[in-house]
Amino acid sequence: MNKIELFNNFEKELKFSVTIEVYNTFQLCSGDKNYLHTDEEFAKAKGFRERVMYGNILNTFLSYSIGMALPTPDVMIQTQDIQYKRPVFLNDELTMNIKVDEIHKSVNVVQFVYKFFNQENKVVAKGHVQIGVFES
Amino acid sequence: MNKIELFNNFEKELKFSVTIEVYNTFQLCSGDKNYLHTDEEFAKAKGFRERVMYGNILNTFLSYSIGMALPTPDVMIQTQDIQYKRPVFLNDELTMNIKVDEIHKSVNVVQFVYKFFNQENKVVAKGHVQIGVFES
Repeated sequence: MNKIELFNNFEKELKFSVTIEVYNTFQLCSGDKNYLHTDEEFAKAKGFRERVMYGNILNTFLSYSIGMALPTPDVMIQTQDIQYKRPVFLNDELTMNIKVDEIHKSVNVVQFVYKFFNQENKVVAKGHVQIGVFES
Repeated sequence: MNKIELFNNFEKELKFSVTIEVYNTFQLCSGDKNYLHTDEEFAKAKGFRERVMYGNILNTFLSYSIGMALPTPDVMIQTQDIQYKRPVFLNDELTMNIKVDEIHKSVNVVQFVYKFFNQENKVVAKGHVQIGVFES
């Protein structure tokens, strides 16, 4: 069986916690100390209840989902996009739903749609990711 | 002057080094230990000269660029996309070119196009990012 067959009807839910460790390691990795993410007074002045988490933390979670939670690890991201819909805050508990949208067997490509929900079941972000599958 | 006026004809080049610290902090943040990024023999078996860096490391650099390198820090990412064109390896020295593509003053939105080049001046990734500008 070709590995790409493993993706037929694939759909998965994953849980991610936006912990202080996630926040701190993202900040170290990126060097991004924008006030919106680091200064509670600034964030409040912009209309948020507290510091807003870096949107790209969700892309680190996406990296995990693709790298670690698919039916085969023999994959590589080709393209991805994300739309941020609501702010994410420290200690939010997110649920990601990711499912196959299209499979292109002739070029070993799988396209997914995904959504992140917060603990109130509101969509905080959604997007698409396209991977290549290594058949050998 | 409205802050959005600061983006007229904005274009910038930024340098990013894919250091072992960047790699390690990304791995801690994401929890992604896919073999392509962690196992040299696996990466070689897939046709790469060594471990391939996580594509989403580039999105942490994008977070920096938007958060720290624009004419005002009073911004927030709304949408972004990326296409990966070539693998990035440990210790690559990347140059990012980011420039304004469209400005929509009535809704305080700026759209950028960006490209990442490696030290051989080859495009490794490119995409778009849309931000909202806080006018107050």
